Amino acid sequence: MSHAVCTATYRCYDDKADFNKKALGIAVGLTVGSWTDLPEARKAEMEKHLGRVVSVVESGGTEPGTRYADIVVAYPDVNFSRDLPALLVTVFGKLSMDGRIKLLDLDFSADFLSAFPGPKFGIEGVRGLLGVHDRPLLMSIFKSVIGHDLPNLREQFYKQALGGVDLIKDDEILFENPLTPLQKRVEACMEAARQAEAETGQKLLYAVNLTGPTSKLASQAKLAIASGANALLFNVLAYGFDVLHELASDPEINIPIAAHPAMAGAFYPSPHYGISAPLLLGKLMRLAGADLALFPSPYGSVVMPREENLAVQAALIDPALPVRTSFPVPSAGIHPGLVPLILRDFGSEVVVNAGGGIHGHPMGTAAGGQAFRQAIEATLNNVSLPEAAAKPGNEALRTAIDSWGYKTP
Amino acid sequence: MSHAVCTATYRCYDDKADFNKKALGIAVGLTVGSWTDLPEARKAEMEKHLGRVVSVVESGGTEPGTRYADIVVAYPDVNFSRDLPALLVTVFGKLSMDGRIKLLDLDFSADFLSAFPGPKFGIEGVRGLLGVHDRPLLMSIFKSVIGHDLPNLREQFYKQALGGVDLIKDDEILFENPLTPLQKRVEACMEAARQAEAETGQKLLYAVNLTGPTSKLASQAKLAIASGANALLFNVLAYGFDVLHELASDPEINIPIAAHPAMAGAFYPSPHYGISAPLLLGKLMRLAGADLALFPSPYGSVVMPREENLAVQAALIDPALPVRTSFPVPSAGIHPGLVPLILRDFGSEVVVNAGGGIHGHPMGTAAGGQAFRQAIEATLNNVSLPEAAAKPGNEALRTAIDSWGYKTP
Repeated sequence: MSHAVCTATYRCYDDKADFNKKALGIAVGLTVGSWTDLPEARKAEMEKHLGRVVSVVESGGTEPGTRYADIVVAYPDVNFSRDLPALLVTVFGKLSMDGRIKLLDLDFSADFLSAFPGPKFGIEGVRGLLGVHDRPLLMSIFKSVIGHDLPNLREQFYKQALGGVDLIKDDEILFENPLTPLQKRVEACMEAARQAEAETGQKLLYAVNLTGPTSKLASQAKLAIASGANALLFNVLAYGFDVLHELASDPEINIPIAAHPAMAGAFYPSPHYGISAPLLLGKLMRLAGADLALFPSPYGSVVMPREENLAVQAALIDPALPVRTSFPVPSAGIHPGLVPLILRDFGSEVVVNAGGGIHGHPMGTAAGGQAFRQAIEATLNNVSLPEAAAKPGNEALRTAIDSWGYKTP
Repeated sequence: MSHAVCTATYRCYDDKADFNKKALGIAVGLTVGSWTDLPEARKAEMEKHLGRVVSVVESGGTEPGTRYADIVVAYPDVNFSRDLPALLVTVFGKLSMDGRIKLLDLDFSADFLSAFPGPKFGIEGVRGLLGVHDRPLLMSIFKSVIGHDLPNLREQFYKQALGGVDLIKDDEILFENPLTPLQKRVEACMEAARQAEAETGQKLLYAVNLTGPTSKLASQAKLAIASGANALLFNVLAYGFDVLHELASDPEINIPIAAHPAMAGAFYPSPHYGISAPLLLGKLMRLAGADLALFPSPYGSVVMPREENLAVQAALIDPALPVRTSFPVPSAGIHPGLVPLILRDFGSEVVVNAGGGIHGHPMGTAAGGQAFRQAIEATLNNVSLPEAAAKPGNEALRTAIDSWGYKTP
């Protein structure tokens, strides 16, 4: 087969099906429709449109509900335009409704990929903006700020910034509102960032939540930039991957975009239906242009199995994809005592992201950030947290592990 | 509670959870964040932002995995902007990733609804365009047309039109391509429609597939209209509900939009995760402006339980929603012998939609359409299909039920 193709990998559960026949039905049905009935002359013309079964690997037991196959099908590029809606509708439009089937992975042809510039910044670019190259980054999440006014918001921002965090993200459920409208929010928070920088000497990215009607998102982003914004937060799955792709491809939107996984749980957790987390929150977010990609951590209340987490991370940094990497941001349930685990699991190219683990620090929000920075420094220097906590100047870390404990990898 | 609210209904599975506590955690956590810790003065200010538990109804058995509760939570309108991404991220953003939880339903405040004009045409409007008020409509689906050139496509269109169908829809996997580009496709097919109308005296809507980059969809739609298009097909879930909403709200896009359910199977089939079919393919499609809404029929290979089907239909026509109705289009696996069942299940306000059941007719595509029209007429006149098939002039129906059989409701 000499034509360029994108391939889709499915996991298909069925107690009785002939999986080879099923795979052939997919490959033909979702491309040329029928094949064996075609006259030979027509086959010659249609061959370049025909999907092909790449592999069928049957697994699973004899217990009802446990028999499945992983099916890989190649779809000729000539059948779809160079955008994610076209590819997703081709490979998982009608098929998503055809029994117990989950889309596990996609692989893209070089030609398809050529339409995707990917993240503008990626890990290296975000590090460059912050001037931090030698340690994991630290992100702080606004505590619920619905109903707060600008001075209140600014104060919360300032306290987070004082703790030495590298990034602060909006609450993803903070939408355009009269108390803290986008432009004023950006102005107030960036002013607080400058004030904190004067004290800490540290740069900071503020990811302001980009919301509202789809057709206005690009102009809202530019308005935010004109107001001083230096990063965006975006609820990608509420809008579609193509919207992220268009925002990330816009030369005037020249600040990093952090992709929030809101609504992802509608897609990935079922073993039988939906789209796998590594594809949804990893590969597709990155291809569409996320500079930072948030996903559920294996540590907190919003859980994802650790191996799935690591597969999301792997997709975000996989050198095989010829676009910039996306900064992995495992999120939820994170406190300073987990830093050694996070660094063991994700290495140094990770954003440690915390909300309650910063704001809930007994000594206050600024100490919450400091405790994380102390935990990160200790871990990078192979110093155990209890040992680091005992050192002078590390009261913040000591208090944090007194409150939340710590884990030794 | 005097503030306007939108409510969300969830089904939450857990073998051990205190569901009342879980519900309260949702209501507080997804709105003001924390409540009991707030000083009294602050509570007075924040009360209008606070989510409320409306009801918690526990069900299910004692067997592992069967215990669940249906939880209804009210979210104050003041917390989110008047768009579906904001509402969905609020009620099911982070929460979608928090255990086994499925979003079953949403109810909207009058104020929220005021931002949604809904379908421009709806059932009555589509009937008005066609001048057909006294019977179910008949829609025909292009057989796979990837790799076909314009004359070939035109010929297939013409044969479908000759069979007396009211609507013809593009294949949802036909994207912009050099053989049959949008404008030329519309011109060729609409010309074939006029030619057929000269013979049949019947009007016809051709729903051309609207595809490509999100930001170009509105201009593509207008280009299609300028080329003579009189309806659009749209893969809503590949782009997001807000995109449909913006297209349907655009005064220059003054033709009906048929919403295709491609990718819906990534959301609705799991009992534990995702978004229910009646909400996803019914209420939200209608609110966002679908004039016709396709969804899996209970008859074919792409199955959905019959009660879920009827719930989708109910959402599309529910008089409680103050926007125009959407034409229900149960799809897949439909042949003329099923018409009595379809009309029993869905009544007369339905679009009978067939692909293989038209193109696969032994006497050809035109006869396929005629067989459906004959089956519809017989059923409306309380004549059984075998009786109707025996009548002179009804060879098409006779051949169809000889091939595919028939069902008596």
